[in-house]
Amino acid sequence: MSLSVSRFGPLVEVELRGPHHNAINVATWHALAEEFHRFASDDRIRCIVIGGADGNFAAGADIAEFNTQRHDLASVRHYHENVIAPALFAIAGCPHPVIAKIEGFCIGGGLEIAASCDLRYASESAQFGVPIARLGFSMAPDEMQALLSVASPALARELLLEGRILDASEAYLKGLVTSVVAAGELDAAVTAAVARINAGAPLAARINKRLLHAITHHNLTAAARAAGFDYAESADHREGVAAFLARRSPTFSGS
Amino acid sequence: MSLSVSRFGPLVEVELRGPHHNAINVATWHALAEEFHRFASDDRIRCIVIGGADGNFAAGADIAEFNTQRHDLASVRHYHENVIAPALFAIAGCPHPVIAKIEGFCIGGGLEIAASCDLRYASESAQFGVPIARLGFSMAPDEMQALLSVASPALARELLLEGRILDASEAYLKGLVTSVVAAGELDAAVTAAVARINAGAPLAARINKRLLHAITHHNLTAAARAAGFDYAESADHREGVAAFLARRSPTFSGS
Amino acid sequence: MSLSVSRFGPLVEVELRGPHHNAINVATWHALAEEFHRFASDDRIRCIVIGGADGNFAAGADIAEFNTQRHDLASVRHYHENVIAPALFAIAGCPHPVIAKIEGFCIGGGLEIAASCDLRYASESAQFGVPIARLGFSMAPDEMQALLSVASPALARELLLEGRILDASEAYLKGLVTSVVAAGELDAAVTAAVARINAGAPLAARINKRLLHAITHHNLTAAARAAGFDYAESADHREGVAAFLARRSPTFSGS
Repeated sequence: MSLSVSRFGPLVEVELRGPHHNAINVATWHALAEEFHRFASDDRIRCIVIGGADGNFAAGADIAEFNTQRHDLASVRHYHENVIAPALFAIAGCPHPVIAKIEGFCIGGGLEIAASCDLRYASESAQFGVPIARLGFSMAPDEMQALLSVASPALARELLLEGRILDASEAYLKGLVTSVVAAGELDAAVTAAVARINAGAPLAARINKRLLHAITHHNLTAAARAAGFDYAESADHREGVAAFLARRSPTFSGS
Repeated sequence: MSLSVSRFGPLVEVELRGPHHNAINVATWHALAEEFHRFASDDRIRCIVIGGADGNFAAGADIAEFNTQRHDLASVRHYHENVIAPALFAIAGCPHPVIAKIEGFCIGGGLEIAASCDLRYASESAQFGVPIARLGFSMAPDEMQALLSVASPALARELLLEGRILDASEAYLKGLVTSVVAAGELDAAVTAAVARINAGAPLAARINKRLLHAITHHNLTAAARAAGFDYAESADHREGVAAFLARRSPTFSGS
Repeated sequence: MSLSVSRFGPLVEVELRGPHHNAINVATWHALAEEFHRFASDDRIRCIVIGGADGNFAAGADIAEFNTQRHDLASVRHYHENVIAPALFAIAGCPHPVIAKIEGFCIGGGLEIAASCDLRYASESAQFGVPIARLGFSMAPDEMQALLSVASPALARELLLEGRILDASEAYLKGLVTSVVAAGELDAAVTAAVARINAGAPLAARINKRLLHAITHHNLTAAARAAGFDYAESADHREGVAAFLARRSPTFSGS
């Protein structure tokens, strides 16, 4: 498995690639964490899109590695807490907006990655599920928290206890994805979403993400509250209001 | 902008009015807080309906005032924490059931007001969104908490990062509104909802609201738990059970 | 009213029965608590299905008993906290997956039972609501917490303040049920769900349930986190992974 990272100006595209419908191996989990830590400190980035090669998002963690990488209590716990969790945390903690672009299998670890993104655009072909009870294991705590950031507790029970695979329309109806489009229209839908994100001020996006994290983690401290107004004297804030009042489009500098 | 308040027996109707599709200015935010504090202490009220004039709910805060009222860190923070937040808190904290009746634009501060109500009845014409990133700012902490009382974190990300405008059917599907009806049927739908509320005991409604607030704010103290049974020896409780057993309609006195 | 309990190997079927569309009396609430405590300690059980006799799930608590069992502050509080709540807690705390099979009325205490189950399969005939404000009372704290484990706060407001009855499709759209099927297909749908649960390892299901409870109750302690990996060296975990890699179906022993 490999991870392809492409840069188009302020847009980064990350592609999951590899055998078994892009099953994610240890090296790729590490690479995801590393790349997203790099993205975090690059303020020229406006948006990141994660997708998968050859018609699938990702079919889950690479089970072919389990016998060597994940086979007793110590290695199982290490695998989930030191291999998978850091990648999910790096994606969820990324200061820039992150879009999952989902076709085909979005299963297990693939669904966990998608749940760690801000937005989930799916093709009608997409399939969602976590059928790991059939492999004899339950979901690791950090991964369950990632899932619960977009799935209701009732939906998490359904996915985990039944191991059901949901098609795109059921996943949409149950709140698991942002939007579902015809298979041929996914690229255009994601491009339009990126354009909408780019039409806003970068600092506003970052503060919104930080504040949403603080509130949903019950951690709205006085400092987090104050930081919610960090945009107030920024050039982009002045430009945004001035442009609105002058009925013209704003030009944001990111400052 | 002005706020029109009408009283029809136990029903109060509040209407947002003014230029720019009922954009809400500082005076109106203050008036909303003041009126809802007054409603809170009037136990003859059974239900409050908030709507907007001329085919729109409200297009948001009045940006024309920003240059004088909201232009540097101190005034921005004052505007959000001392002007907008008290109005949203007064609505959300109202002991009586509050219905938002929504046509046309329900944007920014308008959506925050709607999210602070108990129920949201929308016309097919309604449009929902918070495109403030295009104005160079992020959502204030108290307002984000109001939004998150009805929007899932995933929906809040979509609304804030993309600045997307949702039509009524998408808003309904994503849980943002209680019900959507054809444009010509909104008055009748709200009237029917008011009648259903009036068919219940007033004290039951108030205790339900208080208890929901305690539970959703992780504050179910022993006192809040005990207060959940305050109806037990009320005349209306005895009347409700007696009427049910006698197969007749109850007559509630509010005591 | 009576409670019928049948055992089919690893499957337990519980049926609510009685007059007034299976209204639930004090004896039945006690029997529910007792039976579910018994199920909890029986590790041969894989799944429990709760349904109702004669085309209804349950129409709520048995109001005919209120004058003798629930008539002043002390008895009202006792009824809710020592009669109903223990039954709901026993269902919600059951270590095995629990499915509600819902036809017809699923009202009041019936809806609270359904909300305490892991999965809710409903017939198109099902109707959901809590019209207790018309009886002059509000929802007890423990019961409201049960409802909020599947209903959003906005939906709880709608159900409690309006007392509206939702049909199956609206309940599904609002996230209150897992699946809705044609009336004649409910048995087959539940049988298929049971089969999917049985295709997973029992220990995985129990750990998933325990961990979901810890996370949703903000109680992911170090011990709860560690217990999330209790499956690691189980025979079923080894069998599940080995079977997957050998492309055969696993045979789980429950150990």
